[in-house]
Amino acid sequence: MKTAYKDLQQKVNRCGFGPECHSSIRAMIKAADTVLSKCDRLPLTSTIPGKAYFALEGKSGLRSRPINSSLFASLQESADRFLDILNGNRRAHSSDDITAAVYTVAVACCAAIDVISKSDRKTQGTLFEWLCAALIRATLRVCPTRSLEVLNLDLRGKLPTDFIFDMGSEKPKFHLPVKTSTRERIIQVWAHQRVLDGVYGAGRFLAMPIILTETKLDAKTLAVTEICLPWQWRLYQMHIASLWNVCYLDAPGEYLKLNNVFPPVRVVTIGDMLAKDGHIEQLLLAHGLPY
Amino acid sequence: MKTAYKDLQQKVNRCGFGPECHSSIRAMIKAADTVLSKCDRLPLTSTIPGKAYFALEGKSGLRSRPINSSLFASLQESADRFLDILNGNRRAHSSDDITAAVYTVAVACCAAIDVISKSDRKTQGTLFEWLCAALIRATLRVCPTRSLEVLNLDLRGKLPTDFIFDMGSEKPKFHLPVKTSTRERIIQVWAHQRVLDGVYGAGRFLAMPIILTETKLDAKTLAVTEICLPWQWRLYQMHIASLWNVCYLDAPGEYLKLNNVFPPVRVVTIGDMLAKDGHIEQLLLAHGLPY
Repeated sequence: MKTAYKDLQQKVNRCGFGPECHSSIRAMIKAADTVLSKCDRLPLTSTIPGKAYFALEGKSGLRSRPINSSLFASLQESADRFLDILNGNRRAHSSDDITAAVYTVAVACCAAIDVISKSDRKTQGTLFEWLCAALIRATLRVCPTRSLEVLNLDLRGKLPTDFIFDMGSEKPKFHLPVKTSTRERIIQVWAHQRVLDGVYGAGRFLAMPIILTETKLDAKTLAVTEICLPWQWRLYQMHIASLWNVCYLDAPGEYLKLNNVFPPVRVVTIGDMLAKDGHIEQLLLAHGLPY
Repeated sequence: MKTAYKDLQQKVNRCGFGPECHSSIRAMIKAADTVLSKCDRLPLTSTIPGKAYFALEGKSGLRSRPINSSLFASLQESADRFLDILNGNRRAHSSDDITAAVYTVAVACCAAIDVISKSDRKTQGTLFEWLCAALIRATLRVCPTRSLEVLNLDLRGKLPTDFIFDMGSEKPKFHLPVKTSTRERIIQVWAHQRVLDGVYGAGRFLAMPIILTETKLDAKTLAVTEICLPWQWRLYQMHIASLWNVCYLDAPGEYLKLNNVFPPVRVVTIGDMLAKDGHIEQLLLAHGLPY
């Protein structure tokens, strides 16, 4: 797993998230599969309506994050689908199949690191960033950057940012923070968007965080909860900045409900985002861009 | 130390940060002194111009956070001064003496927990919050709250906040987040202030984070660095919200320089804030409030 991670890291640093890294992504999923095949399944008590979770436990006793039973599919089939999307065939897959495939691949890679290295959370976050960047790179067909030039009177320099995908002059620019979970830290996403709105003008960047899940596992009781702050989200959307969408792999029901109140915060799945006629495709179409 | 912490916790939960908790604060400082007196002093390599640091190491091998050599004074004298300030005699002490006393008490309590409990950071953060809340409670003579009522058309409920000290109708209200260090997380303070500005009107709340330090210790090389983002702070202050002051116990030079650029972000020490004719006193005076 660690060798596969290092190999992917080198590819990403050298070539970005394009086709050069696809074989390393496949190798990493395979390494995760090997690690997880030696684990035991541990049932968890879900307190979340309509969702069941389990964890995987390694021989060392280290336990993975909670895994959503109905979203977690065959890892080999999911890997094939994931790679097919990277190869530009996302329109051949349904929204639900895309969500399940991306969830399965992402949570498997994170879980494999959970069970081999104690109290490491950074590696999983970085890996999840790479997987999402590769997916969006394949969909938008442009490379992301992680900083922006600021030239504003006497203030000039590089502003570090989350992933920015720039579709070109007078075309949409996407601001895509990628997080394995957010809780109260999500206010940072609205705040960064506010800075972009302020420096470059409101509406220049379309912000969409991509988030794995909001589950939390109580180590003692093995109970899984979802930490959601829907009420705060509404205040942030009204008073800090306006996010284009919030995209989940394992979407919390509490947040999906925000689609139905006015003014809405639009919460979508990764499948709804990437599939044929999905949100990204509609936006590209509206701006005369290839999709 | 743990007994002293629990005792203070009970007092704070039952009586807030008023005189009832002072004896428990003194007991906790004493417990910290006992823990630290059994530690060895470990010299550290400072990469920060003009500042030297050391750490304390317990018999178990656990090491404290970096401690600023020139700010760290006699813990017993600092405790006496700290309690004297809590008793309303802050005007009797110079700004530098206040900063050193508050720094010494705060860093000693945090360091004592560092060397007795591995990978715990939450307890230290909570303890630092209590110490600062008691100091500000003694200065402003009102009790803090940690949530605000929102009544805004069909949106109503309780907004959780950092410490809010409300001086009354048509008087200043203070928004005081307390953090042991901030790094890139400080954008949350600007974002929360933006929400308060939006919900209640700009200028209703005066925001001032109180921060212990921005030092970081490299566990391998024993080098101490300061993580500062002065350039981002200026963008946040211009584009998200306007903080009244940023208050440090161990103020980074990089941030103090922000006082000298236009538009400034005002960065001050806890002594400059609390001392006779200091920033808080001037503000209270200007609004006809007792000080």
